[in-house]
Amino acid sequence: MPKKIVRLTVSDVRFPTSLEQHGSDAMHTDPDYSVAYVVIETDQGMHGYGLTFTVGRGTEIVVCAVEALSALVVGKSLEEIVSDFRGFYRLLTSDGQMRWIGPEKGVIQLATAAVLNAVWDLWARSEGKPLWKLLVEMDPRKLISCIDFRYITDALTEQEALAQTGKQQRVDQMLKEGYPAYTTSCAWLGYSDQLLKQLCTDALNDGWTKFKVKVGADLEDDIRRCSLIRQMIGPHNTLMIDANQRWDVGEAITWVTRLAEYKPLWIEEPTSPDDILGHAAISKALAPLGIGVATGEQCHNRVMFKQFLQASALQFVQIDSCRLGSVNENLAVLLMAHKFKVPVCPHAGGVGLCELVQHLILFDYISVSASLDNRMCEFVDHLHQHFRSPVVIQNAHYMPPKDPGYSLTIEKFLYWLSLHKMKLFHFCMFLTGMFVPIIKL
Amino acid sequence: MPKKIVRLTVSDVRFPTSLEQHGSDAMHTDPDYSVAYVVIETDQGMHGYGLTFTVGRGTEIVVCAVEALSALVVGKSLEEIVSDFRGFYRLLTSDGQMRWIGPEKGVIQLATAAVLNAVWDLWARSEGKPLWKLLVEMDPRKLISCIDFRYITDALTEQEALAQTGKQQRVDQMLKEGYPAYTTSCAWLGYSDQLLKQLCTDALNDGWTKFKVKVGADLEDDIRRCSLIRQMIGPHNTLMIDANQRWDVGEAITWVTRLAEYKPLWIEEPTSPDDILGHAAISKALAPLGIGVATGEQCHNRVMFKQFLQASALQFVQIDSCRLGSVNENLAVLLMAHKFKVPVCPHAGGVGLCELVQHLILFDYISVSASLDNRMCEFVDHLHQHFRSPVVIQNAHYMPPKDPGYSLTIEKFLYWLSLHKMKLFHFCMFLTGMFVPIIKL
Repeated sequence: MPKKIVRLTVSDVRFPTSLEQHGSDAMHTDPDYSVAYVVIETDQGMHGYGLTFTVGRGTEIVVCAVEALSALVVGKSLEEIVSDFRGFYRLLTSDGQMRWIGPEKGVIQLATAAVLNAVWDLWARSEGKPLWKLLVEMDPRKLISCIDFRYITDALTEQEALAQTGKQQRVDQMLKEGYPAYTTSCAWLGYSDQLLKQLCTDALNDGWTKFKVKVGADLEDDIRRCSLIRQMIGPHNTLMIDANQRWDVGEAITWVTRLAEYKPLWIEEPTSPDDILGHAAISKALAPLGIGVATGEQCHNRVMFKQFLQASALQFVQIDSCRLGSVNENLAVLLMAHKFKVPVCPHAGGVGLCELVQHLILFDYISVSASLDNRMCEFVDHLHQHFRSPVVIQNAHYMPPKDPGYSLTIEKFLYWLSLHKMKLFHFCMFLTGMFVPIIKL
Repeated sequence: MPKKIVRLTVSDVRFPTSLEQHGSDAMHTDPDYSVAYVVIETDQGMHGYGLTFTVGRGTEIVVCAVEALSALVVGKSLEEIVSDFRGFYRLLTSDGQMRWIGPEKGVIQLATAAVLNAVWDLWARSEGKPLWKLLVEMDPRKLISCIDFRYITDALTEQEALAQTGKQQRVDQMLKEGYPAYTTSCAWLGYSDQLLKQLCTDALNDGWTKFKVKVGADLEDDIRRCSLIRQMIGPHNTLMIDANQRWDVGEAITWVTRLAEYKPLWIEEPTSPDDILGHAAISKALAPLGIGVATGEQCHNRVMFKQFLQASALQFVQIDSCRLGSVNENLAVLLMAHKFKVPVCPHAGGVGLCELVQHLILFDYISVSASLDNRMCEFVDHLHQHFRSPVVIQNAHYMPPKDPGYSLTIEKFLYWLSLHKMKLFHFCMFLTGMFVPIIKL
């Protein structure tokens, strides 16, 4: 019996994270972590929940874009969509008028992600499975039929993609041990040294072994902070550094060379997220120092990832569950990364990104890469309490979610607020005293 | 006396061009040519007019983005802005929260273009000069100070840029002869062969010698249409073909090879506008056939253009006055193109794009390239009657505009409509009979 989508609502939900410098980096100095939150409803009363992550101002533009896409979704049945998901994906991303304001990038692609995340959630719920399980158990042909191969056939054909997927027996291992994670919670750029030390000590006690530090605003500061962290975590734990696009190409090479003695595994987002050739130059220059280049959280589509891989411009692929066109486009990137033998280490944090991307990385390990070498998923201990099925971290590993769906349902109270078009941000500001414990990170 | 900007209004103005297939191509089959139209007003009652071009649905999203940027503009004086235009550019493009939904691409960059186009218009008006003249007569140091060099210093430094600009005496030549143009009006994809023949005959009679044909939907159709046009225009006139991103890389090479016998000068937008390496592969494959690659109308920022140039991925740079961050970012691209010795042949057509880009290409010739070899500016005979200072074409050349400003003022009736928040599109649909002569293209 077809589940026809009869309603789509979208809300602008903001958290005042800038108040305490959570999430601060060299380019985003005052982020208020936010989402455009999408709920779709079928004629049988079933819901699908989706979102895309933003950092405050501008969320209303993404909301406006979701509203524009809504007409392409409402009235369709789930069966109709998933029987030709590639076609539906292209309907959203290649609308003859709307593609002009992208195409497949920026606001309109973020909106596509929010809408399609809700569709995938609905699909997984209707099958009674967590999303990762839906993917792992799906017939490979069906899975491939969800991907739009337009513009990537010179790097990956449907036949090659099919050859790469297949059922694997790594499920039990994941259920028992979980997927390895690293933490970004200890060293946001705006944190004091004292707070950084405290958080680092706590994280070590909790079993964390891999740590990321924000850098890029001031070299002397970076040297002090990296030295401090390396001292705290010792020589055998892993350190990554993240400049959030702060530098030009030459500057990136000089700056990171100065930080090489702290043995970072990678430098993340050294320059413009659009600069494939720049990242290739940086990769080449830093390789002799044993430092890789990681990027992807603002890499806007599969065509860009294709080129980053073709140009050997990155050594770690950081997919993002809300920047790319949902599961569909992430599947394309996972398969290309495997073909090019580059490990995937997803971007997470934000609002709900951990909840989402854990599904994708579980699928990657179980069905695509079959390897944990140099692989780990970002984790930030942040705003999880607002989700009905928050991530479960045990011993610095993501434990596979068991609830059906894509883990995106925001708690009823927040949802109620957003449905009533109240901006949580202002609400929180108003009630700061009351809210601080709830939004404690 | 400072001219403080006290108001910014933005309107969604649409023209029902899809009714007659004007503007149709392989990817945009039913465009309704539209603009997000910006008017800024100073405390002294002076106005600046700006816009960005869109093709219908989605314009409301760009309008929403302009409204979000508005707070960064209102309250500033023109003097304050132009005394540090680079800083102001970065304020708009690097806002710590809003950059997340770009950065510098798609909706938010289109909105930036609309806003900054209005600022440049205001600046030129306040100096009593057409924009091209403001640029040509500006001190090179001042000019360079308008450009954000972030992310492009590996290709062009400020010092190199300075060395490339300088006052030239090509002004008289331009005032007398104008800048060479080519026409796209004859062969939109949705036109019948009969219409195509008629328009081609008319254009030849009007002195046109360079013609562009839309291709990419159906190979047999393309062969028939290219053959027809080549027959009409003879062997010595110039033919260009434009696929509007329809193909994958391999497909582009095969398809264009089949059309090589009609001797196109270039293939435009053969594949994804993001695919630098793909365009490089196509360029390499088509070079032996004497066919160049042209792209740029959906190239979203200077970082992408930088790489297209670095990778020898295009032989013709098609800047766009509304896709890039206004004059500021276009200056960066003009200077890089000159350094890499690649001719600039701007994208135009749409609504107001011809009016805008003529200023930039005049500046390019007079102050940067000093050459007309393989250079020409697109022209579409389209919706000019709605502008107070429409382009003047004589003998297939753009004649330099003389009115102060950036030629963007829309006639009062349309402006009144837009100010009153009526969507012209619906208004036109309602009054089709009455409106057809007015919007006749």
